Amino acid sequence: MDFAHSPRAREYIERVAAFVDTEIVPREHDYLRALRGRADRWAVPPLIEDLKAKAREQGLWNLFLPDERYGAGLSVTEYAPLAELMGRSPIAPEVFNCNAPDTGNAEVLLHYGSDEQRERWLEPLLEGRIRSAFCMTEPDVASSDATNMEATAVLDGDEVVLDGRKWWSTGIGHPDCRFVIFMGLTDPGADRHRRHSMVLVPVDTPGVRIERMLPVLGYLDEPYGHGEVSFTGVRLPRDAIIAGPGRGFEIAQGRLGPGRIHHCMRLIGMAERALEMACRRATARTAFGKPLANLGGNRERIARARIAIDQARLAVLHTAWLLDTAGPLGAFGGLSQVKASVPAMVQSVVDTAIQLHGGAGLSDDTPLAGFLAAARALRLADGPDEVHLGVVARLELGKYRERT
Amino acid sequence: MDFAHSPRAREYIERVAAFVDTEIVPREHDYLRALRGRADRWAVPPLIEDLKAKAREQGLWNLFLPDERYGAGLSVTEYAPLAELMGRSPIAPEVFNCNAPDTGNAEVLLHYGSDEQRERWLEPLLEGRIRSAFCMTEPDVASSDATNMEATAVLDGDEVVLDGRKWWSTGIGHPDCRFVIFMGLTDPGADRHRRHSMVLVPVDTPGVRIERMLPVLGYLDEPYGHGEVSFTGVRLPRDAIIAGPGRGFEIAQGRLGPGRIHHCMRLIGMAERALEMACRRATARTAFGKPLANLGGNRERIARARIAIDQARLAVLHTAWLLDTAGPLGAFGGLSQVKASVPAMVQSVVDTAIQLHGGAGLSDDTPLAGFLAAARALRLADGPDEVHLGVVARLELGKYRERT
Amino acid sequence: MDFAHSPRAREYIERVAAFVDTEIVPREHDYLRALRGRADRWAVPPLIEDLKAKAREQGLWNLFLPDERYGAGLSVTEYAPLAELMGRSPIAPEVFNCNAPDTGNAEVLLHYGSDEQRERWLEPLLEGRIRSAFCMTEPDVASSDATNMEATAVLDGDEVVLDGRKWWSTGIGHPDCRFVIFMGLTDPGADRHRRHSMVLVPVDTPGVRIERMLPVLGYLDEPYGHGEVSFTGVRLPRDAIIAGPGRGFEIAQGRLGPGRIHHCMRLIGMAERALEMACRRATARTAFGKPLANLGGNRERIARARIAIDQARLAVLHTAWLLDTAGPLGAFGGLSQVKASVPAMVQSVVDTAIQLHGGAGLSDDTPLAGFLAAARALRLADGPDEVHLGVVARLELGKYRERT
Amino acid sequence: MDFAHSPRAREYIERVAAFVDTEIVPREHDYLRALRGRADRWAVPPLIEDLKAKAREQGLWNLFLPDERYGAGLSVTEYAPLAELMGRSPIAPEVFNCNAPDTGNAEVLLHYGSDEQRERWLEPLLEGRIRSAFCMTEPDVASSDATNMEATAVLDGDEVVLDGRKWWSTGIGHPDCRFVIFMGLTDPGADRHRRHSMVLVPVDTPGVRIERMLPVLGYLDEPYGHGEVSFTGVRLPRDAIIAGPGRGFEIAQGRLGPGRIHHCMRLIGMAERALEMACRRATARTAFGKPLANLGGNRERIARARIAIDQARLAVLHTAWLLDTAGPLGAFGGLSQVKASVPAMVQSVVDTAIQLHGGAGLSDDTPLAGFLAAARALRLADGPDEVHLGVVARLELGKYRERT
Repeated sequence: MDFAHSPRAREYIERVAAFVDTEIVPREHDYLRALRGRADRWAVPPLIEDLKAKAREQGLWNLFLPDERYGAGLSVTEYAPLAELMGRSPIAPEVFNCNAPDTGNAEVLLHYGSDEQRERWLEPLLEGRIRSAFCMTEPDVASSDATNMEATAVLDGDEVVLDGRKWWSTGIGHPDCRFVIFMGLTDPGADRHRRHSMVLVPVDTPGVRIERMLPVLGYLDEPYGHGEVSFTGVRLPRDAIIAGPGRGFEIAQGRLGPGRIHHCMRLIGMAERALEMACRRATARTAFGKPLANLGGNRERIARARIAIDQARLAVLHTAWLLDTAGPLGAFGGLSQVKASVPAMVQSVVDTAIQLHGGAGLSDDTPLAGFLAAARALRLADGPDEVHLGVVARLELGKYRERT
Repeated sequence: MDFAHSPRAREYIERVAAFVDTEIVPREHDYLRALRGRADRWAVPPLIEDLKAKAREQGLWNLFLPDERYGAGLSVTEYAPLAELMGRSPIAPEVFNCNAPDTGNAEVLLHYGSDEQRERWLEPLLEGRIRSAFCMTEPDVASSDATNMEATAVLDGDEVVLDGRKWWSTGIGHPDCRFVIFMGLTDPGADRHRRHSMVLVPVDTPGVRIERMLPVLGYLDEPYGHGEVSFTGVRLPRDAIIAGPGRGFEIAQGRLGPGRIHHCMRLIGMAERALEMACRRATARTAFGKPLANLGGNRERIARARIAIDQARLAVLHTAWLLDTAGPLGAFGGLSQVKASVPAMVQSVVDTAIQLHGGAGLSDDTPLAGFLAAARALRLADGPDEVHLGVVARLELGKYRERT
Repeated sequence: MDFAHSPRAREYIERVAAFVDTEIVPREHDYLRALRGRADRWAVPPLIEDLKAKAREQGLWNLFLPDERYGAGLSVTEYAPLAELMGRSPIAPEVFNCNAPDTGNAEVLLHYGSDEQRERWLEPLLEGRIRSAFCMTEPDVASSDATNMEATAVLDGDEVVLDGRKWWSTGIGHPDCRFVIFMGLTDPGADRHRRHSMVLVPVDTPGVRIERMLPVLGYLDEPYGHGEVSFTGVRLPRDAIIAGPGRGFEIAQGRLGPGRIHHCMRLIGMAERALEMACRRATARTAFGKPLANLGGNRERIARARIAIDQARLAVLHTAWLLDTAGPLGAFGGLSQVKASVPAMVQSVVDTAIQLHGGAGLSDDTPLAGFLAAARALRLADGPDEVHLGVVARLELGKYRERT
Repeated sequence: MDFAHSPRAREYIERVAAFVDTEIVPREHDYLRALRGRADRWAVPPLIEDLKAKAREQGLWNLFLPDERYGAGLSVTEYAPLAELMGRSPIAPEVFNCNAPDTGNAEVLLHYGSDEQRERWLEPLLEGRIRSAFCMTEPDVASSDATNMEATAVLDGDEVVLDGRKWWSTGIGHPDCRFVIFMGLTDPGADRHRRHSMVLVPVDTPGVRIERMLPVLGYLDEPYGHGEVSFTGVRLPRDAIIAGPGRGFEIAQGRLGPGRIHHCMRLIGMAERALEMACRRATARTAFGKPLANLGGNRERIARARIAIDQARLAVLHTAWLLDTAGPLGAFGGLSQVKASVPAMVQSVVDTAIQLHGGAGLSDDTPLAGFLAAARALRLADGPDEVHLGVVARLELGKYRERT
């Protein structure tokens, strides 16, 4: 066993940490002011483009992509600590061109896209010139059970026709959002995991309509946003189907593994920043003649947060290593374990940090309230906690059923 | 022991429940649409005034006031279940003219105000024609420790001069907000509980300035809002000081008891509505071939929520009864107990209901996300959980220290 | 609503509290020394008989029995606080002749027994001259589901023949144990709740055999003990069947309501004593230059314990009041609520008190370790927590299913 | 990063796992029967000696010792998974000669003992011919704060004189216990960490007296036991002081690091076995027409147990690796983290397994009740949870205090 990061990972950790600390965090307030100071919040404050250029210049760009042609060639285990660092600031992932769902969409196009799709959509995406969304969850059914999916992607000669309603399509509000990846039912009679297709849909295709933007605990998360999107008789050439009809589930599975690692590590970064803020506050703020750190159970809460974060990080890194060394199947249980536990842990750590900040923690004077919304949302996004706990239990009970 | 409500309370419970169910809840969506559909959200949708008129007509008005001249003459114990019912809808308290902080301000003016103050400010407040705010918490100090307070209310001949900065002044954004009650330091040399004064300040007094409105987990809570307010050389005649200089603490103590009962009972109403929604969802929604109620630990969560709500309600009613029968001193420990435990319990129940609703629970398609923000905020407002736990522990340990 | 105890209850509370404090608690160490100092622990130290005589003399005897002919004529609500006081000491229930399972057995005989059964068994039981046991749970099936019961009570002419194996028959080890109440299947073809019978079995009946005594977390709970008992072709006259064949469930239901109240209140008494000991320890013991109360989260734990105990007590008293005023059906949900939540709460409070006592808390130098075993056992006895949570959830979900 | 065990560790894992599964676990019931079937429980059932011989023959002996001359030469990280496997059975550690406190005492003698001490005491200890105890904790003071220690080891010419009272001296009851290591105050005027000495005391030295054996939640843990031991004017030659006067703290620190890793890993082994038993029970036992696994929240509890165990194991292994690569100082925070969190986690997992076993889980029909006692005890032994949380908090807050 060797818990040390690779030299390459260590070097990136140092550089990303420095960039986040010196370039990004100090600009968060300017960013918020720029964003909220305008009538139209669905626009990108210019400082973001400046930061992106700087990060790209320094080679801190597309670090999430294990493919060396397009990215840094880092393993999931090596990228994980960088994702954590990016999680420390709400604006950092975009700055490094490592934000969801663009990362997952890029991986899909890289592995399953046609040459034409890669050229037309992947390249500008990797250059940070366009953004994208992912349309999977539906409002009218429990989407945690994918067999419930009602949207359709029906073949009609040389074309595919999309119908249905999706929501929680993150990124759809971004002014640069140019395409979405849509998942729908193609062949209800096929084998359970061969029924669905993924289709690349330019957002300006007729029949695509953003019905509304959805808040998460009061946050619209501009300029990305989470949209409810209707697809009504949306016609596209058949080759818009990524990798061909019926491969939707297969693609989704491959997409979700690294995505869950990234989500969990970014959340851990939020928890670290929240804990750091909590500690600073606890030592700097005084009540009843003592620093907050010395009041009530605050020290124990800080200790428990430290323990929970460190354990969670090890669990995610271990799962990343399984993904790297044993593939999605070998990491299957681990992915459900971290997805079922890390967001709830982070929600709790952030809640503690908010409590130590008093009213300031509830407002937007700190990133904490936004972190809380992010962690809370990830207890539902990519499968609710309960579904992942169900997977973990099934695997565990299965060990003994086989033997008897 | 008799756990039955008084006949009078039972009659009001029936009427308020019916009004909330048939008049208010069905209009929540219209209300939200009306509020958010306009450029200026700091205005009251007309349907509120209609509902207020109807409630007043039916005698369901100012039920919080134990004083029979102005209110329904109900004891705190009798009003408590009505507050719970009002908590079921975010718009209900206003409809019955029972919303904070107007209720607390009304009680202050009733008990401590001059005839003139009562005539000029209390009467329109009780008629629902004007609204008010309460300016106590400060941004730069830990306001949980009242001795930290930095704002001043200095006597200057026949006048009092206010300086300082307050925040979390709820209601200050309301278009009908006409006055605030301000608390500040008058005599630093006086006895610890005789230093502060409460001053009635018309919002249009020169030197009063709303600096900004603060969000709570992304919610601005229009049209009330929570303001940061600066007071710069605000001059008022000396008789603007409620009950005279140095009585701020005394007034605050009397104000807080019933206010905490009301807050807790409204929160319990939110929890009841959240649990009801969770149960309906759990039986109506299907995943993996079963209603959600039969998946994972959902039934146990529902059971635990029922148990927690029922225990909390008994604790609040018991404390209300102590307040009615033994006064603020007799209810002191109980008030801290419920304030320290009820908001956290409600936060947890609402969180469970959100989880059962999936993405819908995070958005504004249900009142759940707003309830979460309300419960979370009340773990800080009126003293953070930790301060109240500290009081409970002090009282408990004190029992044994005395004897040794 | 009136949370005050009746004058009669208040008077008994005062007297029982005084007796426990001055007569019983100071003798606990002597009792333990006497019990453990002898080769045969299945004997009653003489001081118990002295205390029983004293309690009986003072009229503090059989207080649990609402029937005025035999007991004090107290309602369940009035007896509840007395049960709490008795819970404070492991030896107190016996001293007042109010210990389980004799109390439940006495109620069964009082309500359902024949005149002869009452004369022969109930009277010496109420005089404290004999003890008894209750044989329901079975080792080979999940007894939480009563339909699993495998033991039989088969009619054979004028006789009934018992076969089967029971365990956790509390009290069977007592030297004065003279009879057990046995529950078995009589008519498998009858309606689900008319299949079983309860039979009064003298312990010296041929075919009754105590196979072994079972420890609870290392405690054998001498001189009562929990036995595994086999019944092999045990023949008794048919009138040994209490109230006649097929009424086992009906009797069990009536027996369980007050029994659960008593169990929960005794546990609350243990929690109160544990909290008192924790507070005394926290103020008297010093580490790192401070009393334990001022270290880490100890104060918050004390506060949370106080809050949890007070809420639980209100919930049990409320359920007792429902039992008194609305009968077993009206109290059905409440009984499951308190049975599902109180033992776990007490386990947690006692665990906290143990932690504050360090190693002493784990040993028998305090009653805490025994309290922990008692609370832990009651999360299983009379139905595991999970079964009661299931009842609460079913009732809750049922409210909404009916309406749709 | 590489989460794979070394080839050498993997080989040992396989062999120890096989030995535990096939040689030890199947004999647990025989062991208990042998132990409890005799009048004197303070004797070792012969099957233990048979198993020890077999383990030694297979080279599965003294695996805990990193020193290649005496042990297997495994790093702490390599031994950790073996300690986990040994934790699965209450009798396994002894069989492999890897039980506390003999392991810690062996390390002390190896590193700090004189040649004579090593020859006379270490060698028979490592051959499993004698056992030993460790006398540090005291009954009259909060021993979590070592500066409270009242026992003395006073120099008197060529001798050292020991006085004081210790308790929780584990192993003192064993028939083969031949020596204890005693810690006492030698020089109150010295620097805080140079005041105490450790002394090797043959148990038959005049003045050493076992006052009584202490139960842990009802368990005396025969034939080892936990003793209260008085030392009255115990005179030993000065060279009985290990490594010379004033080095007690230094030795204790070095001893505690690996010891905490071993304790935590053995506890994790208990949790694994408890979870395995819970899963088997949950699939084999039926109630209400379903296996227990499909009732209530049981699946979620199983999943959460799996997640908690896996995270804890990673945390302990990571700390072991820190100990191996960065020494006690580098592992300081990690050791407190795992000591503060693992026992409580295991207590909770075992509690869940007990609940799934019903009454059987409380009795000695399974090892679960004993595991509960072990886990509960380790929340106090080697420093209570709260002290370790305090260390973690201090380190965490210290990061920010330095910078400001």
